[in-house]
Amino acid sequence: MTITQPSFKQIAAEKVKQRNTKFIADWLIPDDELPSSDVIDVVKWLEKSRVLSPVERAITSANAQTIVRNIEKKVWSAVEVTSAFCHRASIAHQLTNCLSEVFFEKALARAAELDAYQAETGKLVGPCHGLPVSLKDNINISGEATTIGIVNFCFNPPHFEEDAVIVDLLRGLGAVFYVKTNVPVAMMMPESNNHIFGNTLNPMNRALSSGGSSGGEAALIKLKGSVIGIGSDIGGSIRIPGSFQNLYALKPTFGRFPTFGCRSGLPGLESVNSVNGPLANSIESLEFYCENLLSAEPWNHDAKTVEIPWRLDTTLPETLNIAILADDGYVKPTPPIRRGISEVVKKLQDAGHDVIEWDAQDHYRLSQIITSFFLSDGGYHVKKEMEVTGETFFPYMAMYGTTPELTVSELWNLHVERTKLVNDYLKRWNNTRLRTKNGKPIDAIIMPATPFPGNPNGKFHDYVGYTSPFNVLDYSACTFPVTRADKTIDLKDAPREYYSKTDENIANDYDPEESHGGAVALQCIGRKFQEEKVIQMVKVISKLVDYADRTTYTACSSTT
Amino acid sequence: MTITQPSFKQIAAEKVKQRNTKFIADWLIPDDELPSSDVIDVVKWLEKSRVLSPVERAITSANAQTIVRNIEKKVWSAVEVTSAFCHRASIAHQLTNCLSEVFFEKALARAAELDAYQAETGKLVGPCHGLPVSLKDNINISGEATTIGIVNFCFNPPHFEEDAVIVDLLRGLGAVFYVKTNVPVAMMMPESNNHIFGNTLNPMNRALSSGGSSGGEAALIKLKGSVIGIGSDIGGSIRIPGSFQNLYALKPTFGRFPTFGCRSGLPGLESVNSVNGPLANSIESLEFYCENLLSAEPWNHDAKTVEIPWRLDTTLPETLNIAILADDGYVKPTPPIRRGISEVVKKLQDAGHDVIEWDAQDHYRLSQIITSFFLSDGGYHVKKEMEVTGETFFPYMAMYGTTPELTVSELWNLHVERTKLVNDYLKRWNNTRLRTKNGKPIDAIIMPATPFPGNPNGKFHDYVGYTSPFNVLDYSACTFPVTRADKTIDLKDAPREYYSKTDENIANDYDPEESHGGAVALQCIGRKFQEEKVIQMVKVISKLVDYADRTTYTACSSTT
Repeated sequence: MTITQPSFKQIAAEKVKQRNTKFIADWLIPDDELPSSDVIDVVKWLEKSRVLSPVERAITSANAQTIVRNIEKKVWSAVEVTSAFCHRASIAHQLTNCLSEVFFEKALARAAELDAYQAETGKLVGPCHGLPVSLKDNINISGEATTIGIVNFCFNPPHFEEDAVIVDLLRGLGAVFYVKTNVPVAMMMPESNNHIFGNTLNPMNRALSSGGSSGGEAALIKLKGSVIGIGSDIGGSIRIPGSFQNLYALKPTFGRFPTFGCRSGLPGLESVNSVNGPLANSIESLEFYCENLLSAEPWNHDAKTVEIPWRLDTTLPETLNIAILADDGYVKPTPPIRRGISEVVKKLQDAGHDVIEWDAQDHYRLSQIITSFFLSDGGYHVKKEMEVTGETFFPYMAMYGTTPELTVSELWNLHVERTKLVNDYLKRWNNTRLRTKNGKPIDAIIMPATPFPGNPNGKFHDYVGYTSPFNVLDYSACTFPVTRADKTIDLKDAPREYYSKTDENIANDYDPEESHGGAVALQCIGRKFQEEKVIQMVKVISKLVDYADRTTYTACSSTT
Repeated sequence: MTITQPSFKQIAAEKVKQRNTKFIADWLIPDDELPSSDVIDVVKWLEKSRVLSPVERAITSANAQTIVRNIEKKVWSAVEVTSAFCHRASIAHQLTNCLSEVFFEKALARAAELDAYQAETGKLVGPCHGLPVSLKDNINISGEATTIGIVNFCFNPPHFEEDAVIVDLLRGLGAVFYVKTNVPVAMMMPESNNHIFGNTLNPMNRALSSGGSSGGEAALIKLKGSVIGIGSDIGGSIRIPGSFQNLYALKPTFGRFPTFGCRSGLPGLESVNSVNGPLANSIESLEFYCENLLSAEPWNHDAKTVEIPWRLDTTLPETLNIAILADDGYVKPTPPIRRGISEVVKKLQDAGHDVIEWDAQDHYRLSQIITSFFLSDGGYHVKKEMEVTGETFFPYMAMYGTTPELTVSELWNLHVERTKLVNDYLKRWNNTRLRTKNGKPIDAIIMPATPFPGNPNGKFHDYVGYTSPFNVLDYSACTFPVTRADKTIDLKDAPREYYSKTDENIANDYDPEESHGGAVALQCIGRKFQEEKVIQMVKVISKLVDYADRTTYTACSSTT
């Protein structure tokens, strides 16, 4: 008798089937009422639809502060809040395929406990009492699986026994967990596609990618199926999806937020470290998250977290010194992104801020080095997991199957080179004092997070050079929305001399019609451990930019 | 014609010859006036000798604060201070062989500049104006070599062009540099011996090792040839010599003090990081150094330094919770160290502090892991430098010539194991709240830094397990003196069952007569980034211990 192992597709199908049982039927839109696939802007579709009650709409449109305040004032119960987000997350999933794990019933039970506590004591359990928080798939939570897009992890283990430190601390503060969100294989692609759950679409324009690796988070949050989600970033994985969905998304310096107890795609890689950070529709929600999470003193619970409390006394100079990196010389940003940069520069200058240029010196080498770090084990850990089930590589991941393993001495040599480059970078940052009007160094770099307003699905190509240097540098960075791609303004460039093959591919892929309505977001880069300052600066810049999704619905409504 | 390469011994001899030209004849004791080799306590010898003038003696006996204050008040000039330390350092070198690089003339020129600045402006250039600071050999300073005990580095390069960040910052604060101090080969032995400069002896008892790798620093400081010296520690290299010379010596958490621009014995090793920290005869000098160095905001100049200012508002609870690790179960401390522990425990308890026991759980595995990290390149980098000149390995370093290189995937697996162990350790620390009287976790662990009061020269054996776990854990730690070995009390143990071969070797090596007068110091361990708290605790403990070298001279005077 021959025992046939199930194929990786069978294992994945079983996992999806099991997940699908976790949805609550009342919260799903019947298939025949869902928008057809040619409705590309499902953010607008959902805003216009009547599937949510007014109170659900109010709850899910509020920022984190308002939600907790309204629970405290008993305007909303924790159960109402949780229900509203579970409902909206279900719909977001139907529209974009953004969820990996679903545990609404546990969430509702926890919310009921919180309501009971409040009823009994008249108090909240903590500053996040009743606040739903969505989790990127890699963050372990007791009772749920962590697949990180790898078929062999579907039931291995079927569920974790322990919470990641970040979950444990937020739970203690009163947060409610209800979903985990989709990621690419091993979280090592910039689009959230895998053989288990498939691809997550961009709700602003479903022809475009949601980005990766925190694409499920970003799509969910954009559709207001979550008010705060936790993503992770080792090469751009918070900022790429953050920018593709026009979100505020913070990549902190490693050590600012706890990471212990998360599942890694490249376990033991420390030459560059994955960090956790929040994504949200409002900068206020981000700030709320940071302040409250650090109030739990994560450094007492995760040995790699650094004892720097959230510094509420951070103030900005009246005039900011901003360096602009408009083009890194390896891939020219597509027209909508270039327009975004121009608009921000003009607004900064009009407001009296000092704007200078920033050169992408060493960015390309830094992006090469980080790729070498990712591949330094020769793909050993990824291959090992793929081989168990016979799972095949997506083209973007092929190099994990073919790159030779480094020796440790080669790795050490890369560390030495990196350490020098990183110190050189800091010197150049300090030396901007010679170019600014007030003789002080720059406060921030503002630049694209990617060259495009969301790439067409499957066409990110092979370059994360607008984000990954800042993982090697370990700087703090936050995305912020600027505008949306507009086919009537952002016309295709004429053929030109290309910097690189990737540059040419990306220029060729850009189709104003296809990208219409895509997100135009930028990132604000601060130095290491400058998260408070970065958030304050994003507040200043966002006030100048004055972006709101509603202002762009008009522009898009002509096409969808 | 055959060109014969000079042998490594010839290169080393040339280096020593060149260094020796840098001493100033007036400051050297004629050979026939030096103590004979059977005078083992040269600290006492120097105190009793008349080679120093009263003002030189006063200057070199003052702490850092007093020195700068007296320069400010024009009691002493910077030139007088520098001269006194150059003179005393010269003698210290004659007595223990502690110096690697000597640059008195540059120091005096800088001191003269500082005096001129003060005369002109009535101000000091900074809070360290005129303070001599000695440097462990690995710290690059422009114009001088950095040999780190490797013959191939004697003239390669002949001198460095740039200051390490820490030198640059201290220079800006007003510090004066005048010597660099001896280290073991590649700084990877716990005794400061190498083929260039030879071994540095322990001035408290020249039959004992000064320790390593900051042995030159510790010997120099013990003889008051320096008020503040900077050492480095990746496995115990500050604490071992600090404890062997009964000094206050701080090993900070990585990132607290800048390290960029220092020469590494294992360049690119990042699985565990070397840190810089101060050694001094007084805890006040240590504190002065930390506070002022951090006032220069090193995080703006070294990309790996963390933005945590020196927190002056650190306060201690009135009653400390102290865990005592008396014996790690792998090597039993020798009798003098056990007595040191007992005395401290009694004094802590008498003063009302809460003392509990600490188990060395995972220490042995942590010490194995750190050894694997050190050797993870299979000795590639060390061997490469040795091979150029044909330099041979000391027995302690032999494994750098024989251990196979790890693959990166194996290294990653060790990282994963270490990360879990380190988090488990933090949990155990927190869980001490279940065992303390006030229900709060311990404030510190107090324990030996080595099993002996200075090992007999050449007999450290192969275990740094009392220090190295805290490099993997990356905790803050500070040594403090307790007493001195006393042959009349610290009798040899009867044969017993030994924990390990190393335990047996160390027990057998212990000879009360030979170790008499050796240092009995312990270390106070705090959590990550708790340097301020550790210093405050050492102050409290030291007040209880009330150690002073003079109190022990009596005990020793009977024998020397």
